[in-house]
Amino acid sequence: MNLDFKKIDCCFSPYLYPVYADTESIVVVIDVFRATSAICVAFHYGADKIIPVATVEEAMEYKKQGMLAGAERNAIKLDGFDFGNSPYDYMGNHVKGKTIALTTTNGTQAIEAARGAYKVVVGSFLNLDVLCDWLVKQNRDILLLCSGWKNKFNLEDSLLAGAVTEKIKAKNNKYILGDGCLAIKYLFQIGKERPTKFFNYSSHKDRFAKLNLKEDIRYCLSYNMAPVVPVLEGKFLVKAAL
Amino acid sequence: MNLDFKKIDCCFSPYLYPVYADTESIVVVIDVFRATSAICVAFHYGADKIIPVATVEEAMEYKKQGMLAGAERNAIKLDGFDFGNSPYDYMGNHVKGKTIALTTTNGTQAIEAARGAYKVVVGSFLNLDVLCDWLVKQNRDILLLCSGWKNKFNLEDSLLAGAVTEKIKAKNNKYILGDGCLAIKYLFQIGKERPTKFFNYSSHKDRFAKLNLKEDIRYCLSYNMAPVVPVLEGKFLVKAAL
Repeated sequence: MNLDFKKIDCCFSPYLYPVYADTESIVVVIDVFRATSAICVAFHYGADKIIPVATVEEAMEYKKQGMLAGAERNAIKLDGFDFGNSPYDYMGNHVKGKTIALTTTNGTQAIEAARGAYKVVVGSFLNLDVLCDWLVKQNRDILLLCSGWKNKFNLEDSLLAGAVTEKIKAKNNKYILGDGCLAIKYLFQIGKERPTKFFNYSSHKDRFAKLNLKEDIRYCLSYNMAPVVPVLEGKFLVKAAL
Repeated sequence: MNLDFKKIDCCFSPYLYPVYADTESIVVVIDVFRATSAICVAFHYGADKIIPVATVEEAMEYKKQGMLAGAERNAIKLDGFDFGNSPYDYMGNHVKGKTIALTTTNGTQAIEAARGAYKVVVGSFLNLDVLCDWLVKQNRDILLLCSGWKNKFNLEDSLLAGAVTEKIKAKNNKYILGDGCLAIKYLFQIGKERPTKFFNYSSHKDRFAKLNLKEDIRYCLSYNMAPVVPVLEGKFLVKAAL
């Protein structure tokens, strides 16, 4: 038996995380539409730190202290904040060198849930390749934590988890896939050919159509537009050295 | 808008059930390897009632009262009981007309979790067609509850959930699929061609190989061998009228 085998598995909801949690794995938090995509974009545009917080009140507290702050609930930017969770909100010089507090419906809750893990990093289609390179270098068990929608399974986070699984397995065969990763690897094989069409039937379709978020969807499904690896250090997300 | 639309969604773990629970849906409990397969077989061979219980102690209590009782933990039949959870244990005249108490690692726990639902029924590949016919007749929202393995996602329960989704959608287009059902419908499209090969990589493979359960696997993946619909009525599972 090769003792260097590593596990990679997928947890489809922050609510389910206690079942998968251990203190040895690296947890990759995934919220494709849109928190983890926005976080990658913010760092790509030079943000210094992001403080993910669970509640709107905490985000407002930081805002009152003069910090930039983003807040989204039910896919809508909240009044009184600088940003929602659209990646477009974080593109430009206004984020450069800044620390930004952020709370979202799903993604920042998942980061919160995973705090006890060995390490927590942020994944999106926008940082897929650098993320996978970084993960393989760590030589650790990996848990992909999909944020879902209000703790329910969702299609887009699972699709990205499938992409990460496929890419990591292709880079290094030492990884043993858990059943969750086996399933989403198959899912990605189907979805990758036509990702936008793939989402035509998803629960997000109606939610996003009403809010006119077509451009956000298209962008969040683009590969490697924000090649950074945000990693949690204490209360801050920072850019990992690559 | 057509007000007659119904929802069908899938919950991948009993642990996650509170997130999906409502009092209006029919819940289909799925534990392909092997509790819900064994339950279908027992009814097909004439069992009168099954009492699913969460603990070994409860099952033993029924056994002491002179009832037949099955108990399985970690895929192994427990000493002092009449049956484990192999479908082969329940084939024959010895179950005819009997009431059987049953506790298993995953399946009976999932039934326990879902007790508050509008109705709870039992699904397996062995009752796929009659189950789907029955479900469509009820004209209700449906939640497929996969038992998983110790609350983790597993491949075989999800594959059956995909089969149920595909079949129900084919019978009647009024069903709107949740993201969980969309994903597993794709999964089933891949897995159905070669179900045994599909499981060559699953977490159950090693677990079952050690226990020499190849025949059980083959049988549990067979279609329509036990065409019954077990439904929960109070503390008893009974055969629904078809």
